[in-house]
Amino acid sequence: MFPKPYSLRLFVPSDLGKDLGVVLDKPQSHYVANVMRKAAGEKIALFNGRDGEWLGVLQEAHKNHCLVHVTEQLRPQLAEPDITLLFAPVKKVQTALIVQKATELGVAALQPVQTARTNADRLREDKMTLQAFEAAEQCERLNIPVVGELLPLRAALAALEPERVLLFCNERLSGNSAGEVIPSLPRAGKWAIVTGPEGGFTDEEIAFISARENTYAISLGPRILRAETAVIAALSLLQAFHGDWIS
Amino acid sequence: MFPKPYSLRLFVPSDLGKDLGVVLDKPQSHYVANVMRKAAGEKIALFNGRDGEWLGVLQEAHKNHCLVHVTEQLRPQLAEPDITLLFAPVKKVQTALIVQKATELGVAALQPVQTARTNADRLREDKMTLQAFEAAEQCERLNIPVVGELLPLRAALAALEPERVLLFCNERLSGNSAGEVIPSLPRAGKWAIVTGPEGGFTDEEIAFISARENTYAISLGPRILRAETAVIAALSLLQAFHGDWIS
Repeated sequence: MFPKPYSLRLFVPSDLGKDLGVVLDKPQSHYVANVMRKAAGEKIALFNGRDGEWLGVLQEAHKNHCLVHVTEQLRPQLAEPDITLLFAPVKKVQTALIVQKATELGVAALQPVQTARTNADRLREDKMTLQAFEAAEQCERLNIPVVGELLPLRAALAALEPERVLLFCNERLSGNSAGEVIPSLPRAGKWAIVTGPEGGFTDEEIAFISARENTYAISLGPRILRAETAVIAALSLLQAFHGDWIS
Repeated sequence: MFPKPYSLRLFVPSDLGKDLGVVLDKPQSHYVANVMRKAAGEKIALFNGRDGEWLGVLQEAHKNHCLVHVTEQLRPQLAEPDITLLFAPVKKVQTALIVQKATELGVAALQPVQTARTNADRLREDKMTLQAFEAAEQCERLNIPVVGELLPLRAALAALEPERVLLFCNERLSGNSAGEVIPSLPRAGKWAIVTGPEGGFTDEEIAFISARENTYAISLGPRILRAETAVIAALSLLQAFHGDWIS
């Protein structure tokens, strides 16, 4: 969509439909009126994860209160692939990158997991949710991934439906090249990816993950990828062959 | 290689071989002795892009001067895939991410290109080279990618050998899904990837790139990927099918 008919794109919890009025909350109003310096009359896009993407006109633009008049639907809501990312949180900057990149690459759910070698800063799920909002607004997604609370690895694996196909990114693996494994996987409606901490999974964790049904170990090449690079690589390959990159 | 026989891994310009002595330069000596607090007797790994990876023992560890006695080869030098990344530099933090991630993912050369919509901070090729060094040391690569000086897009394309196969990441494309195009490409010895700036390529640039022989446009899905995400996604797919991820 070039050029775009709007200069700003926001996620809102409100219902969206023709001629509805949407009141932005205080932080969003501050962002729109003060940070982005938008004024009444300007066009912005809104999405809520349910009703597609809508064009709206700012009717009031104050730092505490913005009102948007919703005018026309730009895109209908589309189903996004059902991909859950289980990841070991790492340092703050890298964890933020994982959230941002996984959102850009279309995950439905972000599930931080505690592993033996996880050495994370205190995890702020609320901040991660905000990072996911921002990334979704920028990358033109029509919904926001759900951010789960930190779970031990075993509990997070147990919470997956048994039929959900899990890609296990195992840096200690030789063979099982991602380019060979991923295109040959059976079609599935539900996917998950699990990536490890810096330092990798322990032998016990590797055995435990590998023992799960519907689990496929993949190798991401001979170099040691950082946690966030492995997330992007695995998600790109999954989307390219089983997700919504297929034309 | 778990656990590793060394606690630090450094790129050095010197020749490496059994019983050779390697003197580290001042910045590396400062890093080894002051930052990492290594002392005489500790083991470190060295690589130079020519002689493979070697284990060595620190014989002297001073902030201005470190001497390493090279003892045994850990890995022979391997040929890495010949992939050139042409990328439009973006903001400083993102450009650093591109350099780091492309190095982890095994590019041979990083070529920054000036496009119509490139809006980069002043480009510091020397800093980019240092970032590539650091990433190569961490990801256990056996060489360092070459960082080119900023070139106009047309000049950078003209500098590619005609037979080099170019993947053109075009975010405005529909169809040509990366997962369909990349696995079906002919085998080639020389590859390149070109990714655009925030805001994308202009119509004129798209026409110019598309007119090159041995050039294949690919789409990286329905969401708008940031510049660094597109680099990682395209490189992962290329390595998975035509590079050294193949087992």
